[in-house]
Amino acid sequence: MQTSDTQPPYRDAAVSTPKRVADLLDRMTLEEKVGQLVGTWAGHLDEFKDVDDVRAEVVEHNVGAVASFGWGGAVDMRLDDIVDTVNRLQEAALSETRLGIPLLFNVDAVHGHAYVAEGTAFPNGLGAAATWDADAVERGASITATEVRHSGAHQNYSPTCDVARDPRWGRTFETFGESPYLCAKLAAAKVRGYQGDGIEDPSSVIATAKHFPAYSEPARGEDAAPVEISEYLLRNVFLPSFLDVLDEDVESVMPCYNAVDGEPAHGSRRYLTDLLRGTLGFDGTVVSDWGGVKMLDADHKITADHRDSVRQTREAGLDIASVDAVDHADHLVSLVERGEVAEAVVDDSVERVLEQKFRLGLFEDAVVDPSEARDVVGADAHREASLEVARDAMTLLKNDELLPLDGDADVLVAGPNADDAVHQLGGWSVPDPEGTDVVTIRDGIEATTSGSVVYEQGATMNETLDVEAAVEAAEDADVAVVAVGEPWYLHEFGPSVDTGTEPDEFPNRHTLHLPDAQRKLAAALEASGTPVVGVLVTGRPLIVDWMAEHVPAILMAYYPGTMGGQAVAETLFGENEPSGRLPISIPKSEGHLSTRFNHFPHPTPIGQDEHPSSYDPLFEFGHGRSYADFEYGDVALTESTVGPHDTTTVRVPVENVGDRAGSDVVQVYVTNHASSRITPVRELRGFERVSLDGGESATAEVELDAAELGQVGEDGDRQTDAGAYSVQVGDQTVELTVETTYD
Amino acid sequence: MQTSDTQPPYRDAAVSTPKRVADLLDRMTLEEKVGQLVGTWAGHLDEFKDVDDVRAEVVEHNVGAVASFGWGGAVDMRLDDIVDTVNRLQEAALSETRLGIPLLFNVDAVHGHAYVAEGTAFPNGLGAAATWDADAVERGASITATEVRHSGAHQNYSPTCDVARDPRWGRTFETFGESPYLCAKLAAAKVRGYQGDGIEDPSSVIATAKHFPAYSEPARGEDAAPVEISEYLLRNVFLPSFLDVLDEDVESVMPCYNAVDGEPAHGSRRYLTDLLRGTLGFDGTVVSDWGGVKMLDADHKITADHRDSVRQTREAGLDIASVDAVDHADHLVSLVERGEVAEAVVDDSVERVLEQKFRLGLFEDAVVDPSEARDVVGADAHREASLEVARDAMTLLKNDELLPLDGDADVLVAGPNADDAVHQLGGWSVPDPEGTDVVTIRDGIEATTSGSVVYEQGATMNETLDVEAAVEAAEDADVAVVAVGEPWYLHEFGPSVDTGTEPDEFPNRHTLHLPDAQRKLAAALEASGTPVVGVLVTGRPLIVDWMAEHVPAILMAYYPGTMGGQAVAETLFGENEPSGRLPISIPKSEGHLSTRFNHFPHPTPIGQDEHPSSYDPLFEFGHGRSYADFEYGDVALTESTVGPHDTTTVRVPVENVGDRAGSDVVQVYVTNHASSRITPVRELRGFERVSLDGGESATAEVELDAAELGQVGEDGDRQTDAGAYSVQVGDQTVELTVETTYD
Repeated sequence: MQTSDTQPPYRDAAVSTPKRVADLLDRMTLEEKVGQLVGTWAGHLDEFKDVDDVRAEVVEHNVGAVASFGWGGAVDMRLDDIVDTVNRLQEAALSETRLGIPLLFNVDAVHGHAYVAEGTAFPNGLGAAATWDADAVERGASITATEVRHSGAHQNYSPTCDVARDPRWGRTFETFGESPYLCAKLAAAKVRGYQGDGIEDPSSVIATAKHFPAYSEPARGEDAAPVEISEYLLRNVFLPSFLDVLDEDVESVMPCYNAVDGEPAHGSRRYLTDLLRGTLGFDGTVVSDWGGVKMLDADHKITADHRDSVRQTREAGLDIASVDAVDHADHLVSLVERGEVAEAVVDDSVERVLEQKFRLGLFEDAVVDPSEARDVVGADAHREASLEVARDAMTLLKNDELLPLDGDADVLVAGPNADDAVHQLGGWSVPDPEGTDVVTIRDGIEATTSGSVVYEQGATMNETLDVEAAVEAAEDADVAVVAVGEPWYLHEFGPSVDTGTEPDEFPNRHTLHLPDAQRKLAAALEASGTPVVGVLVTGRPLIVDWMAEHVPAILMAYYPGTMGGQAVAETLFGENEPSGRLPISIPKSEGHLSTRFNHFPHPTPIGQDEHPSSYDPLFEFGHGRSYADFEYGDVALTESTVGPHDTTTVRVPVENVGDRAGSDVVQVYVTNHASSRITPVRELRGFERVSLDGGESATAEVELDAAELGQVGEDGDRQTDAGAYSVQVGDQTVELTVETTYD
Repeated sequence: MQTSDTQPPYRDAAVSTPKRVADLLDRMTLEEKVGQLVGTWAGHLDEFKDVDDVRAEVVEHNVGAVASFGWGGAVDMRLDDIVDTVNRLQEAALSETRLGIPLLFNVDAVHGHAYVAEGTAFPNGLGAAATWDADAVERGASITATEVRHSGAHQNYSPTCDVARDPRWGRTFETFGESPYLCAKLAAAKVRGYQGDGIEDPSSVIATAKHFPAYSEPARGEDAAPVEISEYLLRNVFLPSFLDVLDEDVESVMPCYNAVDGEPAHGSRRYLTDLLRGTLGFDGTVVSDWGGVKMLDADHKITADHRDSVRQTREAGLDIASVDAVDHADHLVSLVERGEVAEAVVDDSVERVLEQKFRLGLFEDAVVDPSEARDVVGADAHREASLEVARDAMTLLKNDELLPLDGDADVLVAGPNADDAVHQLGGWSVPDPEGTDVVTIRDGIEATTSGSVVYEQGATMNETLDVEAAVEAAEDADVAVVAVGEPWYLHEFGPSVDTGTEPDEFPNRHTLHLPDAQRKLAAALEASGTPVVGVLVTGRPLIVDWMAEHVPAILMAYYPGTMGGQAVAETLFGENEPSGRLPISIPKSEGHLSTRFNHFPHPTPIGQDEHPSSYDPLFEFGHGRSYADFEYGDVALTESTVGPHDTTTVRVPVENVGDRAGSDVVQVYVTNHASSRITPVRELRGFERVSLDGGESATAEVELDAAELGQVGEDGDRQTDAGAYSVQVGDQTVELTVETTYD
């Protein structure tokens, strides 16, 4: 056919991807190459850009990546607008640039497609982790990928691999909690869900593991402050998640904003090339976090100016500067022309970018079908899947025989988080409820009880409203449900225009206690004599010491997503059995930080008596009550002595000794007695959810891989110490010996 | 002479030390060698040992080092007893062992000879640092050495090189505060004071730099918890003090109890040999912290048992196991006999130990003169020197025109720390006032005012007493002085038998607020209408937020030592001009930790407005008010461009524009704009105390050495970046350029 004869090889889907990449690269000018390595945005960032501005950058400057939706300041948050913009920009790229290279759209769909009003929001990171269910997390990510891809984007800046180390940090809610193991397993599940069988699948997206190598233990909890930790912690706390997502062939990695060992990651060849590509063998793309390039000169002050930052990030190993746009491109062209950056460095990055675009099928099909998008985004099955995750996340912290409520209970619903869709979704979601279809806690309770429901808010985040009215309504009710906690926020904790709070108000980095207004409301309701249930809608472990002492029931709901209010209501009324388990410890006070289950043992120079416990949480990691009543039989290992590459299985007989059905999470902790380095007093090494009817029994089986018990060495591999280990499940301990292969 | 002819060379003072060492070593059995490498104690440690027990260890097991006094659980705390014991044990070693090797006695005289009732206690570390006066610190150390040596000890487990990084840590009071520079300069001054012109001087002692390499940033402030910091922080925060004391030829170094980068220092060849002896070139003795060997198996759990710990510490590079005594010796003999430790390793350590004993002159004169000891220890001139340091330490945090008081003011004196000698001295001092001659705050005020003085304690640390009586007395007085703060404590914070508090009471590691009882007393006095002066007797920066808001004057007294009450009184009444400056920031709350003046800059991803300041103390580092009034003229550099090995001088015209004489501390901070790594927003790099009469002027000159502006690299040397720096004094900034030598 004539058309086929004249089209260049890179346009021919029958040609192999490497050949298409090579052919296209060969045709590109330096300016065209560099354009593929920078992204731009439509919306409010350093400056406002509308879609025409973006179109001009694409057509006139060859910009290859765009974020026009799917993040906080975007121009579009409604699906029809999004699809329209995407198609307009893709058509410009395809038909108005010399080579017709399609655009790569990226989004922050970190807990579902939540920056699209019609999208399905899943529980945020910490809530998803509370399910201890990797399969559910994978399904959620798969749904997210489908919604993202059908609305026109191809790369998702997720999963978060960060391990929660300081709850003052404003991004704690995005993490899977404080266990490196749980974080790694759930981050890997997300990558499987996003990338499916590979990004050639038209319902998949590029997953982006972030923030490499260590972001989440910033000085004094300040976002993007230096993480100045030992190599030992870096390898054994922060790298495990990355090791696991690399095993899942994650396509992209994003560096952290902060410095690690004095080196800002975006400009660090040590981290981005030597460690990531060398030691860890990564071969995908490295994309900057927004602003991460300019911060080298503007904030870290380790480079002279933006041009120097561009040079340093390129030497470090960056592929795509996500929003640095034309400035970055111009500097990079100049750097190559003057010999300050080798063109081969640019070529390597362009090859990686083009390879992903070919594999995504964008050269064949870059345009989105609006009607298909409407069918897919926010589909009923997706909302049902989100509800399932929210149900399993519900973590009953305390229950003094108050819950479950009777189906006809008269309820007062109060608190700033009882009927606020935006707060319920939390950060990395639309900051405006318009166009969303969120089931709030108030909605859920109204739909669940056959009794009467009165809603009287009583307090905002930081100010009391008509507390007296709430108390009067409580006096007439069987139970008062007060939903307290945190609002929508990002980082720490702005923009205040969205949170409605000032930097010195709650939430801030200095206090984890509920603000006075919320405590006053809860105390007034408690004083009414009507039983109070505290529901915590929050991204962090708040210090609810007053509540823990004074109210009979507390339900941790996290940021539970689109259907969260229904999950809360079903749980309060016993239509859902609470089975979530805390993925993070709730500390007793700010002065008790860090409070971690997996702390290190240490000497007590003066005497054990004068050293209070190193782990003294208000509620501990793994805690979560049930309406059902589980008992464990004798824990046993199938093999009590294994080689370093063998596995053993922990067998845990579980019986539901009560009447109600329910689910338990069997948690397997291991202590390493064999190491010549200090090791945690215990580390989570396996878990399994077990669902049982009343009276039913089963045996949970958790496989322990001896190789996974090892510490991560300098070569990025786990090195398992031969010697004694102990395995703990509940209050039982069994001994395990790992032998060397030479025995 | 026949005697001379028959004495072996090692007994001949005319023979060179190396030859004496070689001769003696050559005569020693393995058991005798090993005995020189272990120490024992008399008193209450793991078990109680009396002097006869120690004598038996010396005579029967060749134990070479003894701690029979100068620490918390010692048998002797009165001078006559101490001297008697020392002489008895030395005579046993000299006459009842085969080779007659004298004993080395070690003590914890960390802020003066304070574990001897009659000794002179200087202000504790933080108080000494508040003087910003290296000469005064050196004089104090010299006096301490004289008192220590005249009571029979030879090695002092001081100075502390640790930099305060977490005020929850119970040893913060022992540090010189949060500036690595100030810590280094004062630690070096102490070494000069202790060692004089060398340990051959009979009034000198072996100084012991501790705790190597990094102790003072333990997880959650828990004593001896791991310090898991980056290499960059290790080198640039913790090593500078060690670099400076090594420049002063410090004779001994003590490892920290904790792990650093996963390795407990006592068992780490990386730190004790590769870093300390290799990179840093140290050639003195490495002595264990008490119990530091056994902790490897008992607490860190990195070795199998005590024997294995002995092996590992010997491989690491330990010379003396301070209190491991006969068990350690037996294990070490066995390890050498079985080839698990090379005898050469033992020989190297024994050589170092013997060399110090020869240089100390112990083979010639090991016995103490009791009458000379009585003349020296606690001599009037020593007490006067302690008073001088205490005066210069007094730090006036706040003064709303209340101070100085009139000389005839009627005063109510209240608070748990107003008349308590033990609390005033603080930890590392006798826990019993018997035999001491301490001037308390009550004593000092009674001696200073010509008005009436009523003392009504009002509260203990944690319980109110007769607050009403204190209030009534306040109503009749012109001013109420309430001395609040912390008690005597060690580590965290026991033994409770000494502190009188339980582990869950104040002081503890979780709160830095004054306990309720003390706050209530202060508030009741404030409500009386009589002006209140808060005096803080404390080892840590307590969060006195209520006081800062409500009382007109606050004086930080630290633990001010033997004469501290007089220094406080003189300051309140204007007989001493307050000139102390905070060597540590006082934070706003526990949730604001860390609060450090020399934090790192970092990006603010969401926007500067939403990131509250990274340095927001209640009272900042370097703060301290004066009764005099100083003004600075234009700050200038003698050279604004220097080479990397050059110096420049910061010239600061200072005028005392008021009527009163006073002293100011000119503080010079430097910001490095030239580095390719992140550097602190500012770092203290020089200071000078300036004393001026009213109306007098002078020009402070602070020399800046470009080489000292460098960051400490992997080789342990400072590497100065060429480029731009800025120098800040007060609110002025001048620019400095460091050029490469090639320009």
